[in-house]
Amino acid sequence: MVIEKPSLLLAGQEFVRQYYTSLNKAPEYIHRFYGRNSSYVQGGVDPSGKPQEAVYGQNDIYHKVLSLNFSECHTKICHMDAHATLSDGVVIQVMGLLSNSGQPERKLMQTFVLSPEGYVPNTFYVHNDIFHYEDEVFSGSEPELDEESEDKVEEEQEERQPSPEPMQEKANSGYYEVHPVTNGIEEPLEESSHEPEPEPEPETKTE
Amino acid sequence: MVIEKPSLLLAGQEFVRQYYTSLNKAPEYIHRFYGRNSSYVQGGVDPSGKPQEAVYGQNDIYHKVLSLNFSECHTKICHMDAHATLSDGVVIQVMGLLSNSGQPERKLMQTFVLSPEGYVPNTFYVHNDIFHYEDEVFSGSEPELDEESEDKVEEEQEERQPSPEPMQEKANSGYYEVHPVTNGIEEPLEESSHEPEPEPEPETKTE
Repeated sequence: MVIEKPSLLLAGQEFVRQYYTSLNKAPEYIHRFYGRNSSYVQGGVDPSGKPQEAVYGQNDIYHKVLSLNFSECHTKICHMDAHATLSDGVVIQVMGLLSNSGQPERKLMQTFVLSPEGYVPNTFYVHNDIFHYEDEVFSGSEPELDEESEDKVEEEQEERQPSPEPMQEKANSGYYEVHPVTNGIEEPLEESSHEPEPEPEPETKTE
Repeated sequence: MVIEKPSLLLAGQEFVRQYYTSLNKAPEYIHRFYGRNSSYVQGGVDPSGKPQEAVYGQNDIYHKVLSLNFSECHTKICHMDAHATLSDGVVIQVMGLLSNSGQPERKLMQTFVLSPEGYVPNTFYVHNDIFHYEDEVFSGSEPELDEESEDKVEEEQEERQPSPEPMQEKANSGYYEVHPVTNGIEEPLEESSHEPEPEPEPETKTE
């Protein structure tokens, strides 16, 4: 049952305020928002054209953030969403404008997954952080994957899944399954095992 | 310990391909990617300027997606990240270009949290979906929250947390806590309980 606490968006806003205030005032300590297992990625592709790799854990995140030379970094949040997610966590999507070192503002898109600290009530750490500037991704970038270009994906699938299962099996659920897909969508979706039904359970929604 | 399966990005790419292929070929069935507790939000603010509310569960998502009139919807993925997240889930951030009903392409920013289906191996459903067009958020939008404008947040905090705990308590962890913040960042960050330390555990990272 989904229970969206009315305070969830406020909680997300408070996290976002604390996070970007820290990025402005003390970027050398921003790693303290993360945990030992946290993931962090910033940037589009490296000079060789390969996507930037994520780093993991406070120590690597500390060094990664230092390498980004945040200084007098000012962030304006244009829009943010905060939804309850798995394991009592919170997933937050932020779209805003970030100016670093007096440079012009750049459009920012950042996704956080916050995880509750098990032993301290109402305390969270950043479990995942995916940070991209809009201009890094869109300016002159060629699409890496088109929803209709299946050849590349098929090839990748073959590499990691030599004995594919038939699409029909997962198609019945309509859910995503990590196996090769060799046919279209319509046939499996003819199955009706997941026709929408009225859901009586109370659902308090975020304002 | 973080174990990033080498196949995680491929798995994310396969989900994304299936998802946007469905959005193109059978948007009326896209709700089958979601579960009873899933959250979905699309759009920036409604005509009254209020942020769009999320909808929850397959049934409401079914009707919400229908209302968006997806038809001959083509999506190009410019960049995507897929990270392991809480409860063996996957958090995916997509930045791409979406053209609906032959209209010009619009920049798309979408965050998914995939949750494993407990009883079917390698099967996931979409637990959270946050979908925004870049132009809805940035064009002419005024910042809703600045990292240094604390008054509004203080007010909100007071409303839901009449007896605030002192900042110092959570400051020691450097972690986010859902309580009012009344002072800066430097003082708590002087604490050294979370100085970065080498982390010996093996961490396989996504290529």
